[in-house]
This record gives sequence, structure tokens and C-alpha cells, in this order.
Amino acid sequence: MANSKYEYVKREFEFHRHLPASNWIVVLIDGCHFHRFSELHAFEKPNDERALRLMNACATSMLEKFPDIVFAYGVSDEYSFVFREKTEFHKRRESKIISLCVSYFTSVYGMKWKDFFPNDFKETPYFDGRVVCYPNIKTIRDYLAWRQVDCHINNQYNTCFWALVKSGKTEKEAHQALKGTFSKDKNKLLLQQFQVNYNDEPAVFRKGSSVYRDKVKTDDCGNPIKRTREAITVSSFDLIGPEFWENHQYILGEALCSRRRLNCTREMRD
Amino acid sequence: MANSKYEYVKREFEFHRHLPASNWIVVLIDGCHFHRFSELHAFEKPNDERALRLMNACATSMLEKFPDIVFAYGVSDEYSFVFREKTEFHKRRESKIISLCVSYFTSVYGMKWKDFFPNDFKETPYFDGRVVCYPNIKTIRDYLAWRQVDCHINNQYNTCFWALVKSGKTEKEAHQALKGTFSKDKNKLLLQQFQVNYNDEPAVFRKGSSVYRDKVKTDDCGNPIKRTREAITVSSFDLIGPEFWENHQYILGEALCSRRRLNCTREMRD
Amino acid sequence: MANSKYEYVKREFEFHRHLPASNWIVVLIDGCHFHRFSELHAFEKPNDERALRLMNACATSMLEKFPDIVFAYGVSDEYSFVFREKTEFHKRRESKIISLCVSYFTSVYGMKWKDFFPNDFKETPYFDGRVVCYPNIKTIRDYLAWRQVDCHINNQYNTCFWALVKSGKTEKEAHQALKGTFSKDKNKLLLQQFQVNYNDEPAVFRKGSSVYRDKVKTDDCGNPIKRTREAITVSSFDLIGPEFWENHQYILGEALCSRRRLNCTREMRD
Amino acid sequence: MANSKYEYVKREFEFHRHLPASNWIVVLIDGCHFHRFSELHAFEKPNDERALRLMNACATSMLEKFPDIVFAYGVSDEYSFVFREKTEFHKRRESKIISLCVSYFTSVYGMKWKDFFPNDFKETPYFDGRVVCYPNIKTIRDYLAWRQVDCHINNQYNTCFWALVKSGKTEKEAHQALKGTFSKDKNKLLLQQFQVNYNDEPAVFRKGSSVYRDKVKTDDCGNPIKRTREAITVSSFDLIGPEFWENHQYILGEALCSRRRLNCTREMRD
Repeated sequence: MANSKYEYVKREFEFHRHLPASNWIVVLIDGCHFHRFSELHAFEKPNDERALRLMNACATSMLEKFPDIVFAYGVSDEYSFVFREKTEFHKRRESKIISLCVSYFTSVYGMKWKDFFPNDFKETPYFDGRVVCYPNIKTIRDYLAWRQVDCHINNQYNTCFWALVKSGKTEKEAHQALKGTFSKDKNKLLLQQFQVNYNDEPAVFRKGSSVYRDKVKTDDCGNPIKRTREAITVSSFDLIGPEFWENHQYILGEALCSRRRLNCTREMRD
Repeated sequence: MANSKYEYVKREFEFHRHLPASNWIVVLIDGCHFHRFSELHAFEKPNDERALRLMNACATSMLEKFPDIVFAYGVSDEYSFVFREKTEFHKRRESKIISLCVSYFTSVYGMKWKDFFPNDFKETPYFDGRVVCYPNIKTIRDYLAWRQVDCHINNQYNTCFWALVKSGKTEKEAHQALKGTFSKDKNKLLLQQFQVNYNDEPAVFRKGSSVYRDKVKTDDCGNPIKRTREAITVSSFDLIGPEFWENHQYILGEALCSRRRLNCTREMRD
Repeated sequence: MANSKYEYVKREFEFHRHLPASNWIVVLIDGCHFHRFSELHAFEKPNDERALRLMNACATSMLEKFPDIVFAYGVSDEYSFVFREKTEFHKRRESKIISLCVSYFTSVYGMKWKDFFPNDFKETPYFDGRVVCYPNIKTIRDYLAWRQVDCHINNQYNTCFWALVKSGKTEKEAHQALKGTFSKDKNKLLLQQFQVNYNDEPAVFRKGSSVYRDKVKTDDCGNPIKRTREAITVSSFDLIGPEFWENHQYILGEALCSRRRLNCTREMRD
Repeated sequence: MANSKYEYVKREFEFHRHLPASNWIVVLIDGCHFHRFSELHAFEKPNDERALRLMNACATSMLEKFPDIVFAYGVSDEYSFVFREKTEFHKRRESKIISLCVSYFTSVYGMKWKDFFPNDFKETPYFDGRVVCYPNIKTIRDYLAWRQVDCHINNQYNTCFWALVKSGKTEKEAHQALKGTFSKDKNKLLLQQFQVNYNDEPAVFRKGSSVYRDKVKTDDCGNPIKRTREAITVSSFDLIGPEFWENHQYILGEALCSRRRLNCTREMRD
């Protein structure tokens, strides 16, 4: 960097904010004007599988690129990335973390688009990003539960809404018909009017997508040492109850983090 | 947004930081690992015109997309975007401003790449971003002067370095030869050893690129009302002296901002 | 500081926030629960001259203690202190600036109390503090104007309110009587019901108190070199119009700051 | 607040920073220029019991005033106050928390001075303050351990230093004699040269002072319902090991916080 008389503009005005230690860091990435973007590119309603699979592919690339992301959860045009509690990624500098995540995600979205959609972009896709810190396992799990409850409520509404629209109602009439309805009313509407059991809808629509490193047993070829490998996995399941977290304690636990990052662990055969 | 019992995770943990009013806001976008990226894609050294023109095209798209950006200055793999002093872009929320700028820039970089380079990406390009506030015209001009001095010092060094390397020196020998040299030593080296007058090098290499809205007279077709139109212009010139700024006071001045944003102004014929 | 294994608690968790350069810094100090405090100590209503003179004495001590405070403005139980634009007081660290100002002010308040009031404290006085940055002369002057408009509006209301109460109305009736009244209505009420011309009320009640360093000619004893001395002055006058500021440009101007801090300047006799 | 055209100076420039939820908040208050202050007021060296008891009295007042302070630890001219993890004191606004604590502490210091010292102040005492958040029990306990290790190291050094000075060495010679010594060297020096067993020094000097609410059984007068009362207690003991914390889990635990704030709990007789 040039050591000129103008350098004071950096020294006196640029501040680096560092996120507090011992907190999980969530980066939430959210599509900008994706309502219009989804119409321009003829996304299917209420859910477009290609669009969701593209988002999931981007999230997978994020976990491949940034080893300190331990979990990601996506729904619709948003994705949350959880950095491990003790990450020292760019010394926890806030602007670095936001900008690198949103830039890398955006770039992968552009590059992988053609793997999922037949035509070029009609409009430039872009995303906003924000960062939030959670100081303990309860709050980070509640964050993910919050996003999944949101997913459920929005998807149930949208499933009804588009069923009504496809059946001939205007969008205004569809909104009107759903106003003030509760969850069980919507399920009844789907069942009675459209013979749709909401719980039979694809899990990816109802539960969103979770991305994490799963422990996979590798073929041992008769070797007395068994290996487990960590494979990045995309799946749709319940995040609100304790089951998943109890079976995958290494994800939010820090005890295993050094081993996890080795990406390969050995266990003695019993 | 779902009104669940988990919503506290947003209310209690997410903070919105707003940048102080009456400050010019600079967003600086900088290529990540572009040393390797430039080698993988065989960028010419010390300057690759295609890469610079791609950066300039992205900057132009930024000014088209975000009307509150009044000036941009780029050199190598970095670009600074200056939002007008009184911008209310996303209520001056810091994370929105950083993330939207870096995401849009990245997306355009990916989409326009093929207009400048023959082959696909060998690696995912991405950028980091940061934001700095400047409270008055002196400091924002000094910021731009700082970047341009940096451009000059780096480019002069790189011009010498690559001339030495192309003449057969190793990179290590080239660095060694330049150690401790002053500006005039480097100019002398270029002239005597390589018959290169540094000041004859292309301005885009020596001065970087400025992007702004220039006032252009439109053809009036004998119409008694003259129109000026604002055209986004990319050019390379001195930003350190007062000349450019005196001739373009409307860029950093706020008086004209409302008219400027109309993008077209009328003046009575005299 | 002990170099123990626990030191990480400082390194990883304590952040120093520095206020941006080239901004005037205002520290606003405000009495806590002073409504009750003023009743316990039988402050006169609507204004207690002893209490105001004590506040002014504290403010004067602040300017004596902290040379980078260039102006202070007080009304009722609040005082604003303006640090000069380029102050490097504790490297502009926010928590240092807030805490030192509020602590010193509080301490002086306690020590000087007995100079103005006959009895000891019946309750511990304390103050809160906050800090705000203003990037230019217009905004810092508007800040002070804002406080003075507030002073006027509150004082005019309180003058009417206490006149009504002293005349026999309950506090509730007095509030009711003033509800929805405009400035001119209040002046009329004071004049017609109480024969009080509001503009004849003491300036210190109507305008608040300003504290600054005034230039005072020192007696020259026939010496060919005239000296001006800066004397800390407390006065009540209009801060909203340009007059005071035009006659005291050195207060907010930075050009004279180095001389000002010498606290004594020499001028050649003409 | 007056609704004038100047009000924008508050709306656009004043930002409220709130400390993140689910974190213990530490406010550290530290004497300003207390080296000189202690000399001016002839504090005994290395420790002045009156000065320490005054600090402890101020800390006790803090716990009486602010019920969300669950623990305080002081040494020399500093005191740390720990607000409970879930405190909503002034909505966790940083500037309020810093300024109110440091102002109240300062005010009490001034008012209680005469209870411990015979003469009036020769100089105005004042303190700075800072605030740090700790996200879990481990880090808040490590913070307190850090301060206590600091207390030990400083006190052991000062005990040696002043013993040497009182024995006739200059301050410079005393520093020189202690340079590079380890803990056990200092203990040996005290024992052999001054017949002082460091571990017999008063605990308040070696361990600092802790202030907290202890559970005290009240006299039950034959009543079948036993009451425990919380009494603010000042004591000097080890904070580094687990013992105190295991016996006083309610201090940093949140489970009991609502009951604790009732200040009185009932337990059935067994």
C-alpha cells in the first residue's frame, strides 16, 4: 500500500468490526427482488424444484469452500450459513464474513445456473446478506427452528394459494379465501377441495433443505482400521425437535472440531 | 414472517447498523485471491486490458443499477463506489449496502466474463467488500487521491518488474533489482534499459479508471429547449489535482442531486 | 497487566470503538430521576437558580479540565459538551469519552453542591451520558439550535404550568388548561392572567446557558504587545441565528485550534 | 421533546447500540490518575485499607441500587460489575449502562469519602468505564479469574516494592531489584529480608474483594415457614477454583433469577 500523505483516510476512517468470540455466526443470504426474478424465469409455483436444487448446489459449494461453516439451512430464495462457535475466519471481521459469503454464493449461483435451467439469465440475480451472532446452542438451534417454522407457514399458505389460483381463482380471490385461516383450515381446504394431503407433499418443500457434513463409513477392504469420512449431505428433515441434534452432536459441539476439520477420522475396530 | 415462539432470535440478536447521515459512503470491492485467479486465466502482465475492461463494464452496470452511486474508481482487481452524501439507500443500513454492492458486482462479473474472455472460468471469482464513511468533500477527494497514488506506485513498480522478468530475470532477481528504488530510478530504468517512457504508457494503466455521469448535450433538432442528458462515462485522468472536480462540481455537490437523479435536465436557450 | 492464561477474555471480547475522525463529538449528560431529586431538595419551580448555577459551575469545570471541549450548552438538568472536530482525546474511544465526561461532571456536582445549597444530599445524584458525532458546522449548529428550541418550548410551558398551579389549580387542571395551546396562546395567558411578559423572564431560563472560551483583552500596561487571553464565559443568548457564530468563528473553526489551545495569543499593536 | 425542524439531528445521527442478549455484561470502572490522587491524599502503600473499604462501600451501594448486578469484584482503584445474563436494564443500551454505572459509583465515592478519610478532597476523583459481554459461564468466570490473577501479581510485586522502599532503597533501586523475579523469588525475598510470609498478608490485599448477595437464614420465631433473605456481602476469597461457584450456583445461574429478585424466598421446613 502506498505510503502517501493521503493514507490517513484509511487510518482515521476505516474501522474493522470483529464479531464477539465464542458465538456461532450466522450469515443469512436472501435473494433480491426474487419475486420478479422468479416470474421472469418462469419458476414453477409454489415451488420450483430446479431453483431449489440450484440453491442447494450453491450451499454445498459454500461448505466445500469454507470449512468453518458447519451447517446450512435453506428455504425458497434464502440460505443461512452457520460458522462454528470458535471460527477465526478472517479474524471474525464482520464485513469480510458478509461480503465473502454473499459474493461466493452469488458467483456459484451464476456459474451453476445453466446446470438447472435451459436458458440464460433474463436479469442479473443478486442477494443481500446479514450476519447475526448466537452465544449458545439453545439460541443457534432456536434460530434454525425459527427459519423452519417460517418455511412451514409460508409453504402451507403458498400451496393453498396456488392450488386456488390454478383452479381458476384470481390472486386477489385466493388471498381473500385464505385470510384468517388457521393451519388446520388450510389442511382441510387442500384435502377437501384438491384431494391433497399436505403431509404427503415433498419434504424439501415442507421442511426446507439442510446441508452438513455427515459421517460416512468408508469401505475398509479388510483393513483392521475403519475409517469414517465426512461427506457433505443435503437433506430435508425436522430441525425443531431434539432428534437430529442428538444424533449429530459433533455439528454444534466444539469438542470434535479439530478432528472434524481433518476431514477423516480413524476408529479402532471393535 | 412467522410469528412463532422462536422469533426472539431475530428481535434480541439481530442489530441493524446504520451509517451516519451527511457522509459520503464508499464501498470498496476487492478481488479475492486474484493473484492466482489471474494466473489461472492467463491475464497479461503487468496489466490485462480485457480484465480491466471487464471491471469497468461491471462498474458501469453498478452506476446503471444504483442511481445513488455518483462516482466509481477502479484499479487492478479493486473498485471503489461512492454513494452520494445524502443517500437513503436501504436507510444507510451497512450490511445491506455492502452485501448488495458486492453481490451485484460479482454477478455482473460472471455474466460479462464471456464478452471479454474466450474460455469459461477455471475457478469461481469472488470479491470482498468493506464500507467507509467520509464526512466532507476534502476527505472523500483524499480517499480517491489515495487510491490513485496507490495505482501509480503499484503500476510503476509492476511495469518495471515485468519488463525485467520478460527480459530474462527471475521474479526474485526482479524484486531484488527494484528494492529501495525511487520513482525517478524506476522511470530511468524503463527508459534506459527498455526504451519505455513511463508517461507514454496507456493512461488506463497509470491513472486507473473513473466512472461517472457526464453531462452530454443532446441534439436539439432546432428545438428551442436544449437538453442535457447524463451519460455514464468511463475515463482515465488525474483525480488528485482540482481540475476535474472544479469542472464537475455537480458530482460531489448535493445542490444538484435531485435534478441529477431525474437523469435529464432542461435549460432555456439563451 | 498479568500475562495469565485468562488474558484471552480481554483480547477476544473487549472491543474499542473509536468515533470517526473529522466530526464534532457531542457528549450529552442528563440528570437521572431529577424530577424526584428536585422535589426532595425543594428546587424552586419552574426554575431553580441555585440548581442552574450549580450545573453551570460543573460545565465550567469541564472546560477547565478538558481543553478539547470548545462549547457547552445547558438547560434544566442536562448539559451538552462539544469536543472540537479534530480532537484526539483518548484516541476518540467512545467509552472513554462518555465515562470520563459523565464521571467528572458527577464528581464536581457532588463537590460543589454545598456552594449552592444549604443542606446535604437527601439522595445520590447521578447522570446518564450519550455521545453523538456531527460531521460539519451546519449539523453541529443545528444540534445546539435543537436543544435551545427545546429549552424555549419546555420553559414556556413550565412557566405557564407553575403560574397556574401557584394560582390554585391542581397539576392536572394546569396540564388540561395548556393542552393544545400554541406559543402565542401561552404568552397571552401569562400576560392576561398573570401580568407576566414572557420575554421579560430571565434569559437564563428562556435561552439556557452557553459556556465557551471568550477572547478577553488583557491590560497591557503600556506594553507594545497586546495580549488576548481566553476566559471561560457563561452566558445566555441566542444560538439559533448566525450572529453569535459569526462573531466567534474561532469556536467551531479549526484554523485557530492550535493557537486556541495555547490559551494565550499575541497580536502586534497596529 | 420539541418537534422542531432541528429534530433531524437526533433522528439521523444518534444511534443506540444494544448489547447482545444472553450475555453477561461486565462494567469495569477504573480510577483516573489515581496514582497522583493516592499520593495527594496520602494513601498508605502498598495498600490503603480506608481506600479499599471506600471502594467496597461504593460497590455495595451499586448492588443495592441496581438489582441486576449479581456480582462485583474489586481490587485497588478498579471494580468490575457483572449484570445477569438476561438483564433488560435500559434495554441493554450500552451508553446508558456505562454512564449510569460510572456516574452512580462516582457520586457515592464522593459522598462516602468523609466516612473513611478525615480531610476533604484535594482533587476531584473520577473514573473511566468500559463494558464487555461474556456469552457463557466459562468466559465470565475466566474474566473474574483474570482480574484476580492480576490482583495477586500486582499485590505481590507492590508488597515487595514498598518493603524495599521503606527499608531505604530508592524507587528506582526497588524496581531494579525486582526486575525479572518470579513469584517464588518474591516470596523468598519477603520472608528472608523482611520476615513476611506473603500468605499471611490480609486476604483483602491478596484476593481483592467480592460483593454478592448471600443467602442468609432469618430468625424464624417458631414459624413453620423458614425464610432466607439475601444479604449483600463483601468478602475476600478465591474466585479461580470451582469451590465458591459450586456453592453459589444461583449467582450466575439464571434459573433462580426471578426468585432472587424477589429478594426473599420461602422454603418448607423439612
